[in-house]
Amino acid sequence: MTKILDKINNPQDLKKLTISEMEGLSDEIKELIIKKINTIGGHIGPNLGFAEPTIAMHYVFNSPEDKFIFDVSHQCYTHKVLTGRKDGFTDEDKYLKYSGYTNPEESEHDYFVIGHTSTSVSLAVGAAKARDLTNSKGNVIAVIGDGSLSGGEAFEGFNNAAVLNSNIIIIVNDNEMSIAENQGGLYNNLRLLRETNGTCENNVFKAMGFEYFYVEEGNNISKLIEVFEKVRNTTSPTVVHIHTLKGKGLKVAEENKEMFHWILPGTLDEKPETPAAPQETYASLTTDYILKKKNDGAPVIAITAATPGAVGFDKNFRNLMGTQYCDVGIAEEHAVGFISGVAKNGGKPIFSVLSSFIQRTYDQLSQDLALNNSPATILVNWGGISPADMTHLGSFDIPLISNIPNIVYLAPVNKEEYLKMLDWSVKQNEHPVVIRVPFANVVSSGIEDNTDYSQLNKFKVESEGKDIAIIAVGTFFELGKKVKAEIKNKLNIDATLINPHFISGLDEELLNSLKANHKLVITLEDGILDGGFGQKISSYYGDSDMKVLNFGAKKEFTDRVPMDELLKRYHLTPELIVGDVEKII
Amino acid sequence: MTKILDKINNPQDLKKLTISEMEGLSDEIKELIIKKINTIGGHIGPNLGFAEPTIAMHYVFNSPEDKFIFDVSHQCYTHKVLTGRKDGFTDEDKYLKYSGYTNPEESEHDYFVIGHTSTSVSLAVGAAKARDLTNSKGNVIAVIGDGSLSGGEAFEGFNNAAVLNSNIIIIVNDNEMSIAENQGGLYNNLRLLRETNGTCENNVFKAMGFEYFYVEEGNNISKLIEVFEKVRNTTSPTVVHIHTLKGKGLKVAEENKEMFHWILPGTLDEKPETPAAPQETYASLTTDYILKKKNDGAPVIAITAATPGAVGFDKNFRNLMGTQYCDVGIAEEHAVGFISGVAKNGGKPIFSVLSSFIQRTYDQLSQDLALNNSPATILVNWGGISPADMTHLGSFDIPLISNIPNIVYLAPVNKEEYLKMLDWSVKQNEHPVVIRVPFANVVSSGIEDNTDYSQLNKFKVESEGKDIAIIAVGTFFELGKKVKAEIKNKLNIDATLINPHFISGLDEELLNSLKANHKLVITLEDGILDGGFGQKISSYYGDSDMKVLNFGAKKEFTDRVPMDELLKRYHLTPELIVGDVEKII
Repeated sequence: MTKILDKINNPQDLKKLTISEMEGLSDEIKELIIKKINTIGGHIGPNLGFAEPTIAMHYVFNSPEDKFIFDVSHQCYTHKVLTGRKDGFTDEDKYLKYSGYTNPEESEHDYFVIGHTSTSVSLAVGAAKARDLTNSKGNVIAVIGDGSLSGGEAFEGFNNAAVLNSNIIIIVNDNEMSIAENQGGLYNNLRLLRETNGTCENNVFKAMGFEYFYVEEGNNISKLIEVFEKVRNTTSPTVVHIHTLKGKGLKVAEENKEMFHWILPGTLDEKPETPAAPQETYASLTTDYILKKKNDGAPVIAITAATPGAVGFDKNFRNLMGTQYCDVGIAEEHAVGFISGVAKNGGKPIFSVLSSFIQRTYDQLSQDLALNNSPATILVNWGGISPADMTHLGSFDIPLISNIPNIVYLAPVNKEEYLKMLDWSVKQNEHPVVIRVPFANVVSSGIEDNTDYSQLNKFKVESEGKDIAIIAVGTFFELGKKVKAEIKNKLNIDATLINPHFISGLDEELLNSLKANHKLVITLEDGILDGGFGQKISSYYGDSDMKVLNFGAKKEFTDRVPMDELLKRYHLTPELIVGDVEKII
Repeated sequence: MTKILDKINNPQDLKKLTISEMEGLSDEIKELIIKKINTIGGHIGPNLGFAEPTIAMHYVFNSPEDKFIFDVSHQCYTHKVLTGRKDGFTDEDKYLKYSGYTNPEESEHDYFVIGHTSTSVSLAVGAAKARDLTNSKGNVIAVIGDGSLSGGEAFEGFNNAAVLNSNIIIIVNDNEMSIAENQGGLYNNLRLLRETNGTCENNVFKAMGFEYFYVEEGNNISKLIEVFEKVRNTTSPTVVHIHTLKGKGLKVAEENKEMFHWILPGTLDEKPETPAAPQETYASLTTDYILKKKNDGAPVIAITAATPGAVGFDKNFRNLMGTQYCDVGIAEEHAVGFISGVAKNGGKPIFSVLSSFIQRTYDQLSQDLALNNSPATILVNWGGISPADMTHLGSFDIPLISNIPNIVYLAPVNKEEYLKMLDWSVKQNEHPVVIRVPFANVVSSGIEDNTDYSQLNKFKVESEGKDIAIIAVGTFFELGKKVKAEIKNKLNIDATLINPHFISGLDEELLNSLKANHKLVITLEDGILDGGFGQKISSYYGDSDMKVLNFGAKKEFTDRVPMDELLKRYHLTPELIVGDVEKII
């Protein structure tokens, strides 16, 4: 039997199909998506749940004159298949050809690189405004999931979209889920809307002034087409609220929505009967610590902004924590204001967040937290150079956080330090503390850490040498050890090795003392150099004869660049570092 | 006649008064507020409009066990008068004793230092959660103005407050105004609620799940007391929506709400008949330029996030711009997403914003704008070291913005450069461009600037010398000239003077060439040193014999510290700089 997809090379081809052919097409695409994602990993639930709506959108609207702007864009696979990129799904050798997100460099049907949530409506309002300014044509259609609605930028976007006085259509893709469960009052309204087929009192979208349409069968192509045709070319801001099933078409994903939001390669393959023994991770150390504090009666509260899984707050942990666990939804700004409020009033908040998402909170870190010296704890996860997609890099948190006054930013190099820092942070009442949780396997010194972290900005000399000092931050401490060995090996110098502990300030006394018998200081940090830790060291030595070499990443967005290549590019191997040292010593 | 205020030394004293005495008290307090603000300047409209609600709050609730958390806290003067700080209002010599915002160091009745908008609900949710965690008591009451509601953090806070399952009361102080007019769909709902005495369909607060009460006469103490008593000790999240009159009690402020949001000293005094001739400012240069582009048919659009007055977008300009002017409300995140959307679709957006408020947009600058290389223009105003309140400092934007890849951050030193940069930015299609508008009187070279800014990171040697090079950024270029003169005078050295134009990158060729006949480079920047421009220079020279001295501000929050003192503290006078130079040359 000829496949329907064989006939589809661009969205125009779709328009010749019958409803039942489109349903068949949807099944074919889902099969490809499942196979591809099970091979290379990726967002499976969002993509499966949005196949039918995407087909209906392309059937009714005319991309690229009509513009689709996808929030997070982790639901864009069907869109990619329909817009000339099916080779990335049918040909296993090309699985990595296209990114997991929209990208204008891939296709004229994509308008933005998008990977963070809650941005699509703002971008769409801009696109619509530009259309009107330049007297151009076309519908502007933003797609946003219910989970993304809780983010502040989304609300700001809706508030402004409502008064655009022009064509903008916002498709609210309500699958009753964020990555984990949805959180917040807004979701009571969405639930009521679903339960009343969109007719309940106090419709939040109507309240803001939108025309509103509800589609209960949000995976039904024919029903979707009917409503999309109704709203096409509307001249008033319009919300189409569609009720979809996350993971639709893959039973295990439909039934385990959180676990199948994003999967690793091979997840769908048959598993061995006996699972491997649970491994100690920095996440498990964290949850064990928090649970112990709770059991000791401390007013700790563990907070996530919709990514509990990524930070190790699994269902068991959440259950055990009860009311001392709080998922604020995709709302990092609120999370930081919230923990400041808790910390200033006797609670002990621990907010665990990814490096890439703490970016949403600069002003809250500064105003809500730092200005108030609120003794909250923030754990930054996944910080560091990585082969990730350009929208999810973790290499910017050091410049972001360490240049805000009052915040103590700590970088543990092993398990013992991490636990000591965490415990100090939770017990003290003077400072906002951020800890950069190592994005690595657990390293253990086997020796209890007795450092008094209330002595701010005190660096630790791990081994005293001369001529060259290596200051190696956090996860790069292991690299520092290797550099020391390579220096000994190549240059026969016993270098001093320093673990600074603190990213946000300098140990001036120690730095000054190094001048006596050192000529060169090397700094190693796992992030971009601009605005980072090493540059503070360089500045400190600016009036002296000390030479300083800063090693870290270049200020750039890298997109799925293999780690080996990045380490080479940035001279972050012992050999390349010592090569640079040789040039100036 | 004995004044009622004489009897009031703390909130308990208030509880003995009759309604009519409280009304008299309100008048007395307003008189003091008007006199004080007309003497030292400040937020007059918000404070006058919130006197009666504050009195009613203190009458019904028991501060400090019941906690009041004021959004922006620019409406807290009556609260300060009632909580032991009336000397700061009755005694002219003590007018500067208390800040214009809440501050826990001043009183146990204040919980947070607050000066940015849209944060109170998040902070209050945190305070309420801490109360419950520690089994403490008391109502938590957040006060938030309608203008602040459009900010993303406020919405995130409401969304979480709604599901707190515990006591929290949010007083929405609806005076129908942001600093300028309110913007957005939400405000249609507030208007409908006012018009229907709180009974209209589609109540946005009820939609989120709040108990809701409306008080039409929001400046009527007796009506307020009635409702506050009803909601006191509630166990469900509750919104009390009160309709107040901004500026109430001062006719000119009631009638000119935008102009009387914040006033300069002496504003209420009699004015001379003939106003001074309008002066050229960087703001007037900006609006003149934008209007000219519009008249030339360019698809420019001028954008503000609720602070049109502060950036020179006056009523005349707004009228002339028509649909090419857009106030997005207090919604900086949306603003950046929006301009990215406009710029990627052929429009020419110019978003003018204060340094302190661009802080709310780090993630949008990075993800919405920089990742997409959207050719939008952002004008950062009021950047630099200042004697401002600690919540409104402008000294952090260089580290914030210049360490994000792809963004071109420019620092003009005079009118000609500013206009050339602005024009280049609007015409080009490659880069997101941010211009740090000099926070100073207009400086003119009298010579047209012919620099090609598409040659990124090209510094300009303004005068070539030797031994010492001064790299002076933006407004500090004038300081650089003085330092050069002082070096000549004191050391008889003809220093090289460099205007870098670019804050976000280095001219490595030039820096390298300086090694030939210079021993010392001095950097001057108007902002904190940590993560800033000078540290990049220090890092660049780390492997060489070049000495580098970075001059700028320390990483700290300063609170109303006089400029002279700051310049001395940071060694930012020609004499102190050259003193430091002498020590190492």
